[in-house]
Amino acid sequence: LGLSAVLPGGEVLETGSRCHKNVVGLDLTRLFVGSEGTLGIVDTAVLKLLPLPEGSASLLVCFDSADASLGAAEAVLRARLLPTALEFMDAATLNALAEHFGTVPWPQSVGGALLIRLDGFESAVAAELARLEALMVEHAPLSLEIGQGEAEEALWDVRRAINPASYRVAPDKLSNDVTVPRGKVGALVAGVHDLAARHGLQIMVFGHLGDGNLHVNIMHTAADEAEHSRALVAKDEVLRLALSLGGTLSGEHGVGLAKQPYLDEQLSALERRLMRDVKAVFDPRGIMNPGKAY
Amino acid sequence: LGLSAVLPGGEVLETGSRCHKNVVGLDLTRLFVGSEGTLGIVDTAVLKLLPLPEGSASLLVCFDSADASLGAAEAVLRARLLPTALEFMDAATLNALAEHFGTVPWPQSVGGALLIRLDGFESAVAAELARLEALMVEHAPLSLEIGQGEAEEALWDVRRAINPASYRVAPDKLSNDVTVPRGKVGALVAGVHDLAARHGLQIMVFGHLGDGNLHVNIMHTAADEAEHSRALVAKDEVLRLALSLGGTLSGEHGVGLAKQPYLDEQLSALERRLMRDVKAVFDPRGIMNPGKAY
Repeated sequence: LGLSAVLPGGEVLETGSRCHKNVVGLDLTRLFVGSEGTLGIVDTAVLKLLPLPEGSASLLVCFDSADASLGAAEAVLRARLLPTALEFMDAATLNALAEHFGTVPWPQSVGGALLIRLDGFESAVAAELARLEALMVEHAPLSLEIGQGEAEEALWDVRRAINPASYRVAPDKLSNDVTVPRGKVGALVAGVHDLAARHGLQIMVFGHLGDGNLHVNIMHTAADEAEHSRALVAKDEVLRLALSLGGTLSGEHGVGLAKQPYLDEQLSALERRLMRDVKAVFDPRGIMNPGKAY
Repeated sequence: LGLSAVLPGGEVLETGSRCHKNVVGLDLTRLFVGSEGTLGIVDTAVLKLLPLPEGSASLLVCFDSADASLGAAEAVLRARLLPTALEFMDAATLNALAEHFGTVPWPQSVGGALLIRLDGFESAVAAELARLEALMVEHAPLSLEIGQGEAEEALWDVRRAINPASYRVAPDKLSNDVTVPRGKVGALVAGVHDLAARHGLQIMVFGHLGDGNLHVNIMHTAADEAEHSRALVAKDEVLRLALSLGGTLSGEHGVGLAKQPYLDEQLSALERRLMRDVKAVFDPRGIMNPGKAY
């Protein structure tokens, strides 16, 4: 809702307010959000909070292919269910987790999985859970597990282990968080699986289907020069694939240095000029996180 | 999610994307939203849509005072109910509606009312409605009416008639849409009622309690010079009262010319300078909606 930031000259800028709505002047608060330290240093943020829900339930549903998983996810959204989380994990991700944990609640033949969370009042969660379960059963899952209470946390502990589990696949990682319009997620997953096979690389694909945001972890051994080169080519292809589908280089983590060479592929020359000129308004000497972003 | 805008030099700027998430570069989309035509002319907007809910229900609950209404609304939020709408109407508003419609579902002694809408799956709405009704009954309402289907629309037709009904009070209006942090709504309503009595003016107060956004319509006869002056003084006091409560001059409708003289009361000199310099990046000749806003 608002923030306080120190500008490069030492002035303290306070933007926004504690109000839920505010349309007075330009939205400098949003301008700072995602600016990656290029305008000033944010030292306070006023956040809008929502009450914790009374209850929740999660479902881990496994399918024999990535496509089947994505089809089931689409059905969830079409059924007007609005889950708090609608997570996808592909076979490479699930296999890494299986190796990490030893025993996992899915068969070896798994091709993809959804982890879905509902929350709200207990009675609403119960009704939506029944509907969600019936819908998933229609999509012929290999396995289906419902978690509530501690059992729910256990399902999320699996999801949270993806990062440590990934290093069982290979010692090095090129992380991406490309995002595409929701209708293009299937094409993105298929394209990444295709290029993984083509380059002989283990690529883990997982992420947030509710907003089309996929994490694409290109696992490799950087000490192996040939493999490292193939990983870099794969990263290039992943980013260009996302852009060709109307997507964005980053949905969450930002541009930094890693995606900067690709900015011209997403942003127009006009956008980049305006962004640089806006930065110059806040940071005329260009000392804030220089050389980063736009 | 994105937009297309024509800049003053004729260049067409396309910002954002069709993705639900995008953190590449500065958020020029949000910079345009609420800029009141001062940066360029927006000709396309890409919106994120939510599915229509399966069901809904609304409750019109009347109380003997504004305070009682606001206390009941606070209880709704504390109970973690998240209604789609949580509308307040004060006695002046309800009296104008009574005159407009002839018959209305509240007694003449009414001091304030809430109109609350719940939506979601039918079963969830039913459970939340039962909880909401029980909660309202605890707050000793003068009347309570539940509307679903056509009866629900009828309740909202009452709310939608506030604007035409207002001209039964007086021929002229000074409209405000001040917003305060949610915990300050009671102080704002009490302060406005106090100044209405002090200036002998009919002021209608109604609005959206979920985000602390109140419409304060100062009704008067502009042809009566003395009354017109009192109305202008009242407007000044309403705006300063909202600001003194940590509020904002406008929650929805913007600054325009009407609130421009008050900008320095809300925005710091630093904010105003930065906003003007950012405007100059887009509109170096200052031809876009000149003399407006910041």
